[in-house]
Amino acid sequence: MAVKSNELAHLHEMLLKMASLVETAIKNSVKSLVDRDSGLAIHVIENDKEINSYDVKIDEECIRLLALKQPMGKDLRFITTAMKITTDLERIADNAVNIAERAVELNREPVLKPYIDIPHMSRIAQGMVLDTINAFVNEDTSLAKEVIIRDDEVDDLNRAVCEELMEMMIRDPSTITRVVKVTYVSKYLERIADHATNIAEDVIYMVKGKIIRHMEPGSL
Amino acid sequence: MAVKSNELAHLHEMLLKMASLVETAIKNSVKSLVDRDSGLAIHVIENDKEINSYDVKIDEECIRLLALKQPMGKDLRFITTAMKITTDLERIADNAVNIAERAVELNREPVLKPYIDIPHMSRIAQGMVLDTINAFVNEDTSLAKEVIIRDDEVDDLNRAVCEELMEMMIRDPSTITRVVKVTYVSKYLERIADHATNIAEDVIYMVKGKIIRHMEPGSL
Repeated sequence: MAVKSNELAHLHEMLLKMASLVETAIKNSVKSLVDRDSGLAIHVIENDKEINSYDVKIDEECIRLLALKQPMGKDLRFITTAMKITTDLERIADNAVNIAERAVELNREPVLKPYIDIPHMSRIAQGMVLDTINAFVNEDTSLAKEVIIRDDEVDDLNRAVCEELMEMMIRDPSTITRVVKVTYVSKYLERIADHATNIAEDVIYMVKGKIIRHMEPGSL
Repeated sequence: MAVKSNELAHLHEMLLKMASLVETAIKNSVKSLVDRDSGLAIHVIENDKEINSYDVKIDEECIRLLALKQPMGKDLRFITTAMKITTDLERIADNAVNIAERAVELNREPVLKPYIDIPHMSRIAQGMVLDTINAFVNEDTSLAKEVIIRDDEVDDLNRAVCEELMEMMIRDPSTITRVVKVTYVSKYLERIADHATNIAEDVIYMVKGKIIRHMEPGSL
């Protein structure tokens, strides 16, 4: 039985809503660090429940469609991809919660230095998350490939941030406990970009019916 | 159409084989650090290709069974769970590769101190990975619940390791670049345990038909 277009639209809608909540969580977690706003950080931590409820709802809807409609071909791939995407989105939100937790700790201590690269990484990662979901909804493999390429930029920024922070610790060991927490934030953002990349790879699979995970970048 | 028992057995077999490769990867990555054996670390990095090929093979087999057999009820949940498990196993292996990469870097530098808690964390994490897959194959929710509880132990060890390492850096700033890498190893192991916990939660869902992700531990 074919999956009805309104059922697919409902899945689209839930994924877009979840992605928008996740994007806001990333943005606010980094904002809570940059603006030293622990209230906002706690807001991010509390809002994670709503994101988790979307994870469960989307999964249940996918299982329901698989059971009732027994879809084939592209509909089948669409639904199994949606199940994979919701797992990645949920884990991205967990990383935003981790950033918010570090922000609460860092906001209690003296300012280190203005954050420049971290908000930059965050903006790229947020864009990657929104674009992967748009790529999914519009079956846009070019956009998905673009997202995969942007991951390298985040990796490079993470490396630069970690090196700079390492030097800061060596120069002034009194900063160590704070600086280590900032390196964690940088790594959480890098992992968010990795999850977005996983989603982009799944979108390409869904459209082309070919699993591109674990391929060399040149063969995309 | 019901999925044939030999088809399910074949999926079991592939997942058990993949889990065994992943467990070996974790074990060898930590061994390469403890024994300062960079050859073994490179072996772990190279073997990741085989694990990735299982990820693709299992996913393709699951999609094939969903399309051809259009399974219902527990068979359906078994197959969608297998797809989620292979994603987590593959990411666990990525973390083992990350540990091996840090080992190669650390093995080039002077010894810090004997590793005690990290091999301990690794043994717990390895056991969690094997037990979750056994729980899956034997539909053993008690074992899955045990795995979830063991995650707290890994979290506590990670916290203790990171605190100890922080003190080491403050005492002797010449160790900073090395020590930061060891904190990453500890966090990779913690993440491996998190992935095993995700698998255990999916196994409980598969058997009970109830999504327990995002529930409070007391309500398990």
